[in-house]
Amino acid sequence: MTTVVPKRTRTKKATSQTKSQQSEPHEVKTRLKDINGRRHAIIEHVKPELDGGQFPIKRIVGDTINVEADIFTDGHNVLEAVCCYRFSGETAWQETPMKPIDNDRWQGEFAVERCGEYEYTILAWVDHLLTWELDFKKRIAAQQDVSVELLIGAELVEKAAGRAAGNDAKALKQFAGQLRGKNLAKAIETAQSEDLKALTIAYPDRSLAKAYDRILKITVDETFARFSSWYELFPRSWSKTPGKHGTFKDIERILPELQSMGFDVLYFPPIHPIGFEKRKGKNNALETTAEDPGSPWAIGSPEGGHKDILKALGGVKDFENLIKKAAKQGIRVAMDIAFQCAPDHPYVKSHPEWFRWRPDGTVQYAENPPKKYQDILPINYESEDWQNLWLELKSIFEFWIEKGIKIFRVDNPHTKPFIFWDWLINELKQTFPDTVFLAEAFTRPKVMQRLAKGGFSQSYTYFTWRNTKQELEDYLTELTQTELKEYFRPNFWPNTPDILHESLQKGGKPMFISRLVLAATLSSNYGIYGPAYELCINEPIAPGKEEYLNSEKYEIKSWNRNDPGSIRDVITRVNRIRLENRALQATDTIRFLTVNATENQENQQLIAYLKTSEDKKNRIMVIVNLDPKNVQSGWVQVPVRELGLEHNRTYIVHDLLSSSRYHWQGEWNYIELNPFQMPAHILRMNNG
Amino acid sequence: MTTVVPKRTRTKKATSQTKSQQSEPHEVKTRLKDINGRRHAIIEHVKPELDGGQFPIKRIVGDTINVEADIFTDGHNVLEAVCCYRFSGETAWQETPMKPIDNDRWQGEFAVERCGEYEYTILAWVDHLLTWELDFKKRIAAQQDVSVELLIGAELVEKAAGRAAGNDAKALKQFAGQLRGKNLAKAIETAQSEDLKALTIAYPDRSLAKAYDRILKITVDETFARFSSWYELFPRSWSKTPGKHGTFKDIERILPELQSMGFDVLYFPPIHPIGFEKRKGKNNALETTAEDPGSPWAIGSPEGGHKDILKALGGVKDFENLIKKAAKQGIRVAMDIAFQCAPDHPYVKSHPEWFRWRPDGTVQYAENPPKKYQDILPINYESEDWQNLWLELKSIFEFWIEKGIKIFRVDNPHTKPFIFWDWLINELKQTFPDTVFLAEAFTRPKVMQRLAKGGFSQSYTYFTWRNTKQELEDYLTELTQTELKEYFRPNFWPNTPDILHESLQKGGKPMFISRLVLAATLSSNYGIYGPAYELCINEPIAPGKEEYLNSEKYEIKSWNRNDPGSIRDVITRVNRIRLENRALQATDTIRFLTVNATENQENQQLIAYLKTSEDKKNRIMVIVNLDPKNVQSGWVQVPVRELGLEHNRTYIVHDLLSSSRYHWQGEWNYIELNPFQMPAHILRMNNG
Repeated sequence: MTTVVPKRTRTKKATSQTKSQQSEPHEVKTRLKDINGRRHAIIEHVKPELDGGQFPIKRIVGDTINVEADIFTDGHNVLEAVCCYRFSGETAWQETPMKPIDNDRWQGEFAVERCGEYEYTILAWVDHLLTWELDFKKRIAAQQDVSVELLIGAELVEKAAGRAAGNDAKALKQFAGQLRGKNLAKAIETAQSEDLKALTIAYPDRSLAKAYDRILKITVDETFARFSSWYELFPRSWSKTPGKHGTFKDIERILPELQSMGFDVLYFPPIHPIGFEKRKGKNNALETTAEDPGSPWAIGSPEGGHKDILKALGGVKDFENLIKKAAKQGIRVAMDIAFQCAPDHPYVKSHPEWFRWRPDGTVQYAENPPKKYQDILPINYESEDWQNLWLELKSIFEFWIEKGIKIFRVDNPHTKPFIFWDWLINELKQTFPDTVFLAEAFTRPKVMQRLAKGGFSQSYTYFTWRNTKQELEDYLTELTQTELKEYFRPNFWPNTPDILHESLQKGGKPMFISRLVLAATLSSNYGIYGPAYELCINEPIAPGKEEYLNSEKYEIKSWNRNDPGSIRDVITRVNRIRLENRALQATDTIRFLTVNATENQENQQLIAYLKTSEDKKNRIMVIVNLDPKNVQSGWVQVPVRELGLEHNRTYIVHDLLSSSRYHWQGEWNYIELNPFQMPAHILRMNNG
Repeated sequence: MTTVVPKRTRTKKATSQTKSQQSEPHEVKTRLKDINGRRHAIIEHVKPELDGGQFPIKRIVGDTINVEADIFTDGHNVLEAVCCYRFSGETAWQETPMKPIDNDRWQGEFAVERCGEYEYTILAWVDHLLTWELDFKKRIAAQQDVSVELLIGAELVEKAAGRAAGNDAKALKQFAGQLRGKNLAKAIETAQSEDLKALTIAYPDRSLAKAYDRILKITVDETFARFSSWYELFPRSWSKTPGKHGTFKDIERILPELQSMGFDVLYFPPIHPIGFEKRKGKNNALETTAEDPGSPWAIGSPEGGHKDILKALGGVKDFENLIKKAAKQGIRVAMDIAFQCAPDHPYVKSHPEWFRWRPDGTVQYAENPPKKYQDILPINYESEDWQNLWLELKSIFEFWIEKGIKIFRVDNPHTKPFIFWDWLINELKQTFPDTVFLAEAFTRPKVMQRLAKGGFSQSYTYFTWRNTKQELEDYLTELTQTELKEYFRPNFWPNTPDILHESLQKGGKPMFISRLVLAATLSSNYGIYGPAYELCINEPIAPGKEEYLNSEKYEIKSWNRNDPGSIRDVITRVNRIRLENRALQATDTIRFLTVNATENQENQQLIAYLKTSEDKKNRIMVIVNLDPKNVQSGWVQVPVRELGLEHNRTYIVHDLLSSSRYHWQGEWNYIELNPFQMPAHILRMNNG
C-alpha cells in the first residue's frame, strides 16, 4: 500500500516519484525471493478488526477478547492456529490457541489485564505430524498396510524431539523408537496414543507458519470509561449567597451530596477566564452589562487562557484541592476542553498566525453563515504553523492532567480536524493510558463514528432525539449489534445546557423520570445537566426551540434544590441500582422484549428490555411507560427458557425502584405503569 | 502494516527486529513531520474494495465502475472529490468527479476500455472559494453587510487566477476586479455568478488535498470471461472409426457442428502423454490391459510431460492448427492444466526434489486417507526448491499461450497453495491480459472464494447440487447480491465427466432440458460435458454414486450423436437465445419472481426470474418447471410497474424456445409447463 496524491490529468508529465511507485508492485511480485512461498496457511476476515486494522477496538480492563478468523489451507492437511497478543511495548507475545468453529471459521480468546494499548494477531501453520496421526487412524480403520507409514511417522516424531528439551524430548525419542520397533502392535498403539498427540501439539514445527499480515490494536481503558454517571454543573451558580459568584470552595461543600446521589463524574463547563470583548449577555444577547459573567465557552481574557482559572472561581490550587477532595468521595472531576478563543485571549496576540485575519485587519470570528458567534474565534488548523499549534494544544491537556484531571469532555471536536484528534489522543494515552475523552459532537453519524474510531473514549449520542419505542429500539440495536459496539461507547444525556428537548418541555415530571430511567439503564454511561434536571426545569427560550430560557450559560443561577418537585430521590435510587447491578454496567448486553397491549398487538407506549451481566448471574428487566399522560398496561413476554424459568412455575420479580415484589408465571405477564406514580419498573429477575 | 511472525512465548528474549517493529508506530505518530496535518478530508469505506485493497475486483472491457465512499471533513466547509483512475503502468491519472448522494456518501463512475489492470483511488479537498461562494449567498439572503466579504472573495479569486492560464486566468482576474470594484451591485452579482462558479470548479486549490491511502485494482478481462458457452469433450473418442483413438484432425471435422450449436469454448481434458506406471483401467480399475488408454489426468510418460502432446492425438503442430481453425469458427480452445504427475513423468527423474519420497525409497503418490491415487504423484510445494518449481510451472502456461491458448481450466487448484496461484495468475496476466482461468475447485465456500479473489477469472460452482427452488434462489442471491459479485464469476455446469447428479440419473430427458436451461440462463458462463449431456446419458457406476458408469475418463467412447433421444436442438436454441439477448450475458442482473400455485401459496416446482440488460432494453423472463414428472401450473407475478407496463393493458410475451407468443395482462399471469413437451419458457418481454 502506498500513499500518493494523484497528479492532476492536466499535468501530463510523470514525476520520478510517481514512476517508481507505479512500477513497484509488478517488480515485487516478480521477485520470488520476497514471497514466503512455502507458508501456505490463509488467514482472513479477522474480527474484531476496524477498517483494515487502521483503528483500535476498545475494551476495559478485565475484558475477554474473542477473536475470530477464516483460517484454511490448500489440501487436506491439519492446520493449527494461535492468537498472539501482548501489551504494546512488550517484546514477547503471549498465545492462546484458536479452534475451528464451523466452515473454516476459527475462534480464540484472551483477557486484557492492564490499562493501555494491546496488540493481537494470528499465526497458523500446517502440522505434518498431526496430519500423519490423523491419517494413520484412517489407514488402520481401512486395514491398510502401515509399515512404511510408521517409518514416516518416526521421522516426524524425531524432528519433534529435536524441538523439545528435557523429559519431553526423551519421551518423543522413545515414541520414535517404538514406531521404528519390531513390535508392530506397540508401534500402532503409539502412533494413535494421546500422549504422543499432546507432545505433538506442545512442540509444533512452525518454520513454515504464516502470520496474519496486520497487527491489530486494542485500547484498554479503566472501568469508568464504560460505566459512569455524570453530573454537570456550572460552579459559578453554587454560592451560598444567591446572585454571588460561586467558587470551587462552594463545590467542595456539595460533594457529599453528589456522592450520596450516586454520581461519580462531576463535570464543569470551562473554568477559564472569560473574554470581555464581544461578551454575550443574558439569553445570548449582544448587549451586556458589567454584571454579565459571559459564556464560559468564550475562553480567554487578559486574566489568562486555557491554562488558567477564572479568578472568581478560585485559583489553580483551589481546583487541585477540589479534585483531591472529590476523589476521596469517589468522584472524578471532568474538565471541558473547548479549543476556541475569545477575541481577548492571550493567544491572539502571542500567536496571531493561529487565527484567520480579514482584509480589513480584523480577526475572523466564528460563523456558520448566516449565524455569527462574535465572542468566539475559531483556531485556524490550516495555519502553516500547525505543528506548534498542535503541540501547544496538547500541552493544555498535559497541564490539567498534571493537576489531577483524567476525564475530558471535548467541545465540538467535529469542527477540528479528525487527524488532530487521532494524533492528540493517541499521544496522550501513550503516557496517560487512564485518561478518558468524551466527544461532544452532535452531528452526522459518520462524523461521530470517525471521532470515536480516532480515539474518543465516549461519545454523546442521538438519545435526546430518540423518543418513541421504535426509535429507541432501532438506535440501541445500531449501537450494540453493529461494528459500532467495538469502538463507539455511548453516553446518554436526557438534557444538556444546550438542549431541552420538547418531550421534557411538555411531558412534565413523569417524562423527566422516564427519560432518566431510560438514559441510565439503556446506556451504562449517562449524565444529566444536574440542577435543571433534578428540578424538572422545562421552559424554553421560545416555543419550538430547544434552548433553555434564561440559560445558565449566560448568567449566574441560584438553584433551590430542596424544591418539593425535585426528582432527586428517584435519581438517587436509579444510581444505586446501577451500582448494585452489573447487568447495567455495560451497554451491549441489551435485548428488547415484546410488550403487547392485546393479543398480537404491541403496546407502543411500553418499552421493555432485559440486560444480563457477562456471567449471566445478574439480570435486570426494565419496563418504561413512554406516555407521560396516561396509565399504560400490557403483557410483557419473558424469555423464560433462556432465563431457566419453568413454564408453569411461579417466580418472583423484584422492582428495585419501588421495592415491590411480584409473583409472575410463565412467558406472558401483566404490567401496568401509572406515570404519575412511577413510569418505570426496574426488575431484578431471580434465577429459575 | 508490518508482517511479522510473532515469537513464541517460550522464547522470552526479543530479537532486535521485533523490537524495532514494535517501537515504530509510536515514533511515527509522535513525529509530526510525518503527518499531513493540514489535509483534513476523510475518505473511508470505499466500495468496491476487497479485503482492504488486497485483491482486485473483476470487470470486463467496456464496463462502468461505480465507486462510492464516505467523504467528509470537519466543520462546514465545502468539499470536492474526484475518483482517479488509470491503466496500470500509465503515469498520468484520469479523473471523474464524485458527487454526494446522501449522508456523507459520495459516488463517481468511470469506464474501463482496455483489457488488463486498472487502478483507482480517491482525492478530496476543502474548497475555500466554493465555500465562500455558498456562504456569500446566505449572507445576501440574510441581508448582511458583505463589504469585507467581497475583499476576501477577491483574494481567493485572484489565487484561482494564478492557477489558471489564458482566457480563464483573464476572466478570473476580471471577476476579482469586479469583487474589489466600487460598483457594489456588480460585485454582488459577480460573487453569485455561475460563470465564476464554473471557473472555481475548473481551477481548484488542491495543495491540501487528501488522497485515499490505498490504490485499488481492477482486473479487466475480455468479454468472454463473463459470457461463454463451454463444450467439453475427450478428443480420443471422436474417431470416425468406433474404438479407434481419435485425433485433433477428427476434432477439426466437428468444429462447424459445434459452432452451429452455439458453443464458443471447446474444452479438452489433458492432452499430454499419459503415464504407463500404475495406469488405471476401465471404471478406475487397478488392473489394466494393453488397450486401456488411461486417465488423461495421469500426466507424463517417457513420451513427455506437460509441454508435450499425447502422440495418439497428433503433434503440437496439429494442436496449433486446430486452435487456429477453431478460432476461425469463433471457438476458443480451452486447455486443462493439472499440476500432478504420473510416476513415469520426466520430472520425477529430472527434479526428484519436487516430490516427496518415502523412507522405503518410493515416491509418495496422492492420498486422502484411506483413498489412494497410485497413478498420480502430487507435487511438493513445500520443496526447498520451490522457486524453480514455480518458474517451471509458469513456463508450462507460457508454452501453451504461445501456441494460441487463452483459456485454462485448472484442475483442483485448491490442493495447491493459494499464494502460488496469486503469483502465477498475476504474473501471466501482466504479460497476457486476455488469458482466462477457470478454477475447478469443488470444495468449501471460503476456499473457492479465496481462489477467485486470488485471480481465477471464472469458478466452478455448487450449481450441480442446487436443485430445489429455494436452493437455487438462495445460491444466486449469494452470488449476485453479496461481495462475491465483485470477484467470483460463476460458471454453471449441469454435468462434468466426474459428476452425474442424481437428479439427472432419475429425471430423464425433461430434467436434462430443465437443468440446461437453468445453467444457461441463470449464469452467463455455463458449460456441459457435451456428448454425454446431449445424449442424456444417465447411468451411474453404482446406485447413490455420482460417477458415470464406464466413464470416458478411463476408456475411448464412441458417441452416436444422431440418436433420436438427443437434446441437441434444444441446446442449439438455448445458445442462440443467449447470443441474441444481452440480458443473458451477465449473471448479476437477476431478480427472482413469485410464482403462486393458488392465491398466497407458492408453487415450489416453478421457478421464475427476470434478467435485464444494463441499458434496460433487453428483458428476459425465464420460467422453469423443476418437476420432471408432472405438469405444473401457476401464476407468475410480473413487475409491471418497473417494466413500464400499464396495469390494464395487454402486452405480448414471446417464448423464444417455442416461438409462441402470449397475450398477458396486468401483474399476475397464468403459466403451465408440461415437462414432456418443454419444461421451460424463455420469454422476451417487450417494452410497455
